[in-house]
Amino acid sequence: MARISVIGAGSWGVALAVMLNKNGHDVKVWSHRQSQVDQMNDTHTSDKIKGVRLPDSMSFTADIEDAAKTADVILMAVPSKATRETAEKIKPFVNDNQIFITVTKGIEEETLFTQTEILEDVLGSEKRICVLSGPSHAEEVVTFKPTLVVAGSTDRQTSLFVQNLFMNKYFRVYSSPDVKGIEVGAALKNVIALAAGMSDGLGFGDNAKAALITRGIKEISALAVAMGGQAETLSGLTGVGDLIVTCSSMHSRNRMAGFYIGQGMTKDEAMEKVAMVVEGVFSAKAAMKLAKKYDIEMPIVEVVNAVLFDGMAVKDAVYELMTRSKKDETDELEW
Amino acid sequence: MARISVIGAGSWGVALAVMLNKNGHDVKVWSHRQSQVDQMNDTHTSDKIKGVRLPDSMSFTADIEDAAKTADVILMAVPSKATRETAEKIKPFVNDNQIFITVTKGIEEETLFTQTEILEDVLGSEKRICVLSGPSHAEEVVTFKPTLVVAGSTDRQTSLFVQNLFMNKYFRVYSSPDVKGIEVGAALKNVIALAAGMSDGLGFGDNAKAALITRGIKEISALAVAMGGQAETLSGLTGVGDLIVTCSSMHSRNRMAGFYIGQGMTKDEAMEKVAMVVEGVFSAKAAMKLAKKYDIEMPIVEVVNAVLFDGMAVKDAVYELMTRSKKDETDELEW
Repeated sequence: MARISVIGAGSWGVALAVMLNKNGHDVKVWSHRQSQVDQMNDTHTSDKIKGVRLPDSMSFTADIEDAAKTADVILMAVPSKATRETAEKIKPFVNDNQIFITVTKGIEEETLFTQTEILEDVLGSEKRICVLSGPSHAEEVVTFKPTLVVAGSTDRQTSLFVQNLFMNKYFRVYSSPDVKGIEVGAALKNVIALAAGMSDGLGFGDNAKAALITRGIKEISALAVAMGGQAETLSGLTGVGDLIVTCSSMHSRNRMAGFYIGQGMTKDEAMEKVAMVVEGVFSAKAAMKLAKKYDIEMPIVEVVNAVLFDGMAVKDAVYELMTRSKKDETDELEW
Repeated sequence: MARISVIGAGSWGVALAVMLNKNGHDVKVWSHRQSQVDQMNDTHTSDKIKGVRLPDSMSFTADIEDAAKTADVILMAVPSKATRETAEKIKPFVNDNQIFITVTKGIEEETLFTQTEILEDVLGSEKRICVLSGPSHAEEVVTFKPTLVVAGSTDRQTSLFVQNLFMNKYFRVYSSPDVKGIEVGAALKNVIALAAGMSDGLGFGDNAKAALITRGIKEISALAVAMGGQAETLSGLTGVGDLIVTCSSMHSRNRMAGFYIGQGMTKDEAMEKVAMVVEGVFSAKAAMKLAKKYDIEMPIVEVVNAVLFDGMAVKDAVYELMTRSKKDETDELEW
């Protein structure tokens, strides 16, 4: 049994907290909003994830010192924009015996850092840090539907510890050393989800969407490899697996934003209609910067950026993708 | 402009015939049933693919000599069970200047040959043979929805010729030398589609299905590599791309058969309900034989076989997959 503090009370943080509690751990959830803490304490429900009763043995706090100081494990589940600021908040209270897990997806636009890199930057690179990622709707995890994810850390013991922490009959955890591959895939899949949504919005079919997913993963994979990740990871659960879930879900805000754009809305109209942060829009910019930095050809990322930021008509974007010069499927294969 | 004979008048053969005709080629469709030929001639429609008018400039024949003798290109689109027999029929009328394309998916159970291997075996290995595969519902191709596929041949010129034959604004063709990878993926994806259908039938969610697709491709990929194929191909359009289309479609007979089994039907009840050949059931057996021959661990293929042929309860199958010993995601990566 471990003492685990979940930092952030969004749907994914709360879902994992419920599951870790069920696994027998001592779980505390931190939110920066006292009103949210009071609500969870009083009603044992969360407005972020409906229909789930939060167990009596879980506790809630808005006190970051209380959350960070005594935990064996600190699970970071805040939105990517809040990662650096929240890491600064916990920094005075953490120690080298703790294990830090991030379940947030995103690249910091200014630094182009991944989530674990932000944590290392703020907390120190000697800290034991792990990323948990994979195809995992929170709503399915809290209702005990079978789910498979990956725990990635450059330190094998850390990865195996996290695997043990989470694994149960319906939540299967694989271990991996490829933190970079996992994080690049997780962050950039939302850009491809936007493209898949646009295709659906234009009235295209399953053929086009499957092709976008497949070719999309290929370009993300090329970038991840250039950044030090492994191609195997991108064709695994945290790459194509996660992208499949995102692109097939009516609930994905990235896919939905793309859908509305495909139907003719502007980016701003689409984001307003979705009424939540559409991470892919920010990741699209970061992806473009990374493509330039590492000199990787990313045609899908490019047209998504052109549609979002340069006023390219979405129909023209597809036409551009379909009429590129004839190509081998994979440059690396020899005839 | 090429003279193309499409051998087989199923939905995929007819869809490709219509598209090749639109590309300006001289297209003839052969069916072994004179009544089907008469119907296509008289009504310019096909009962295999609804809502499409067959152009006046297309011709139809039940005479195999007429179809095979004068064509520049012979496109084989018969069910996999009929490939050998049909190849024997065309054999007396073919020549070495022709190009042969197969769009059929399946492994011959007795020989474990792929489709191109059957064609080589019957017609001679000096023939120029190409496989065309990828995520492509016929219904979407005849209604001009964007579609991306791969033309694979060990001979680069053959592959480029086929690419040119098919490519247009809404049908994009990549070339590839990896015939083995393409054909193994195409044949075995139906086994994973059965598993995905079972998961849906059991009431599991998107997480489980995405995980099955991802881990399924991983085991097919391991087998394909052992057989001489390339891992890149399996994470491409003809591997994971095609599997995504199959698993997300309500029309896939393999997925539907799996769905009914997941809901409690026996294999035979499910096949009767689907009322068409469920190729995955046969491919499952071939996959099992190949796994043994090449000594590859294929847990999903194994439980699908156990459910289909050994009376394993479908719920137990999932439990077995979820509770296997803890693993690294990818054996090849070093810590």
